Amino acid sequence: MKADLRGAGVRHLAMAAPSGASDRASVRRANLGLVLRLLRDAGARPRTRIAAETGLPKATITNLIAELVQNGLVREGRTERDGSIGRPGLTVELDGRAICGIGVEINVDYLSLIALNLRGDVIVERRVPLDVPGTEAAVVLDTTAAVIRETLDTLRARGARAVGVTLAAPGVIDPDTGVVGYAPNIGWRQVAALDGLRDRLGPGAPPLGMENDAKLGAVAEYLLASAADIHDLIYVTGETGVGGGIISSGQLLRGSAGFAGEIGHMPLDPTGFPCACGRRGCWETMVGLSALLRFAADPDDVVRDPAVDLEQRLADLRDRAASGDPRTLGALDRVADSLGLGLALLADVLNPRAIVLGGHFAYFGDFLLERVRSVLDERVMAPDVGGCEIMLSTLGFTAAARGGAYHALEPVYRDPSGATAALG
Amino acid sequence: MKADLRGAGVRHLAMAAPSGASDRASVRRANLGLVLRLLRDAGARPRTRIAAETGLPKATITNLIAELVQNGLVREGRTERDGSIGRPGLTVELDGRAICGIGVEINVDYLSLIALNLRGDVIVERRVPLDVPGTEAAVVLDTTAAVIRETLDTLRARGARAVGVTLAAPGVIDPDTGVVGYAPNIGWRQVAALDGLRDRLGPGAPPLGMENDAKLGAVAEYLLASAADIHDLIYVTGETGVGGGIISSGQLLRGSAGFAGEIGHMPLDPTGFPCACGRRGCWETMVGLSALLRFAADPDDVVRDPAVDLEQRLADLRDRAASGDPRTLGALDRVADSLGLGLALLADVLNPRAIVLGGHFAYFGDFLLERVRSVLDERVMAPDVGGCEIMLSTLGFTAAARGGAYHALEPVYRDPSGATAALG
Repeated sequence: MKADLRGAGVRHLAMAAPSGASDRASVRRANLGLVLRLLRDAGARPRTRIAAETGLPKATITNLIAELVQNGLVREGRTERDGSIGRPGLTVELDGRAICGIGVEINVDYLSLIALNLRGDVIVERRVPLDVPGTEAAVVLDTTAAVIRETLDTLRARGARAVGVTLAAPGVIDPDTGVVGYAPNIGWRQVAALDGLRDRLGPGAPPLGMENDAKLGAVAEYLLASAADIHDLIYVTGETGVGGGIISSGQLLRGSAGFAGEIGHMPLDPTGFPCACGRRGCWETMVGLSALLRFAADPDDVVRDPAVDLEQRLADLRDRAASGDPRTLGALDRVADSLGLGLALLADVLNPRAIVLGGHFAYFGDFLLERVRSVLDERVMAPDVGGCEIMLSTLGFTAAARGGAYHALEPVYRDPSGATAALG
Repeated sequence: MKADLRGAGVRHLAMAAPSGASDRASVRRANLGLVLRLLRDAGARPRTRIAAETGLPKATITNLIAELVQNGLVREGRTERDGSIGRPGLTVELDGRAICGIGVEINVDYLSLIALNLRGDVIVERRVPLDVPGTEAAVVLDTTAAVIRETLDTLRARGARAVGVTLAAPGVIDPDTGVVGYAPNIGWRQVAALDGLRDRLGPGAPPLGMENDAKLGAVAEYLLASAADIHDLIYVTGETGVGGGIISSGQLLRGSAGFAGEIGHMPLDPTGFPCACGRRGCWETMVGLSALLRFAADPDDVVRDPAVDLEQRLADLRDRAASGDPRTLGALDRVADSLGLGLALLADVLNPRAIVLGGHFAYFGDFLLERVRSVLDERVMAPDVGGCEIMLSTLGFTAAARGGAYHALEPVYRDPSGATAALG
């Protein structure tokens, strides 16, 4: 499945009605989605304007909106003067406060869950510390299922319902089978994560999906960036590994089999450090969190002590940088140079309008950004870095879970009646 | 402009007719294009089937096809039994034998021109040897204009007309302004190529466009690959430089400002050879034609003598490889290893269904392919190379000009009445 996230004007043109009954039903579903996406992308507006913008007759629009209102997806808004002449008309706006999507991220040392309603408001947010590489996969799935179950209860108690749950998993995953194929940073190989969750949640659970964590991070960032008319971006997140998600012309670039965005193992130095993947000089070994810590401190330094909470160690390192410690600043410069090198490569290949840095790249962003930008200025072949800006993510460590929640809501926008009917 | 090349089923749904007269005209134009693209992508078919597949009423289809027939874009085909029952019906098929697109490539040591009609048949093919780096840009443009002018005369004499000319230029180009910004291999910097051609061809010339040569090569390859249901591919061509064109979900990936696909300068070895761009260890210095010649022969060897025709030198080198010369085979192995390294990186980032090798990679393909494939098997993170096949281009050195000709024909598919009306 390809996420269709862009609200480009041309997509707001409705389809002609074919003749068969099943065709008519499918056109109706498509047109319901069309109206809903228009309200999401372009905001509240009167029915007459929706008719004009979709090219559908006013009677059809009235009819479609009645169904969307009945399903709680749309509501009558405030009155608005349409221009300066004529009587004020009721606007229609996105509702969906009772409809939620849930995203859950399995990361190296925590689980993170976010439930968003159709309007994008955060309804539930949970973070559970968990040593994932040191815990059996079955136990990780037990904990994940428990957090999802509690959230479903919370939503039910508030009169809201979840239309789907999307799991954000690191590494090479297969969204169709729900198998995490190879995720070295959490020590998973061929873990049937979605089947495991389905078994634990039972038959009453909402539909479950899975996608790579960095791809979902890119989806979350794109929803912010699209407001600034940015439709080509790369999200690059650094944690234990380095992950990437690519948005091209407003679409998540998944590649032919869903594996696109694997940027951590770009071979940038044949004589470089050994990588967890068994090779040398992968980008991850130059800019990942372990590389930063290795450059910044000796092995017996507290910031390299795995027994100490990672957040505490990173805070320590930030303090050292802020106080001007030369070794820490030198380590950050070294990471910035290598980060710029790899980003310049990606900018040459993809020519994005923006590169958004997440994870520890964002956490240390104020120490990295200037130097990263100057490497790109110097290295990117296109003039003026091809128009690409380097930005820091503002979503913190919630980007993947948030992207998962958006992803779980997508079926509602594609087929509003089907997605809500399935709720019973 | 983004080339919309894919014939995906969903695009064959027609638009509803809005109310205004200018809207009706624009819907008519869009529907003419819809029918024409359906005939291109899916082949000859009866009117009833076109109506069913587009969702448009039969009367509308009859009307649209009458206009397409009148403009010479479509013709009545052979009769065909639609299933086994009922009377045989006339099919409609793509015509456009009198409508041509012209592609002209400016390469390092030749100009290449191809004119294709709407059915994709080659109508004119020209190749003019020219030492482009050693010739003033103004003189190169004189020669290019002369070849185009001759071709226009030839077409006119045969009763065919050109709807557009697309120039395929190497390096970093700006399709909107028609300026070649930086093309080190032909020594061009800020050459206003399209304005120069327009001045030389005068006001009666067909519309002129420009695109990067490797991107147009990718377009030409995609038109072959799409027949095999391949919609994500990377075209990688090696000549003096190394160029790339990316097709993602059936669309040419241009990036936010048209600079995507710049793969020649990926920094794969910080201690490697110096590059023409002023840096070290760019991919081009490891796999480009100069690298191959440098690895294969001493400076005084005839295959490195710029005074000897390049084709002759390459033929010499192939003979040596075929006769088992160890140094030549060693050089090809070395290029194959580095080619595999960079292709593995691109496969990780983009997860294409196919990588098509052009230029000298195709010319020496039988000596490179096995080794390239084994590097990808070993290095690509996704299982089974993410489903990616490595193929050799069969278009020889005509790929870019051919892609240019297809590109020049695109406006006809977007707006058949507009493109042919402009011919007067």
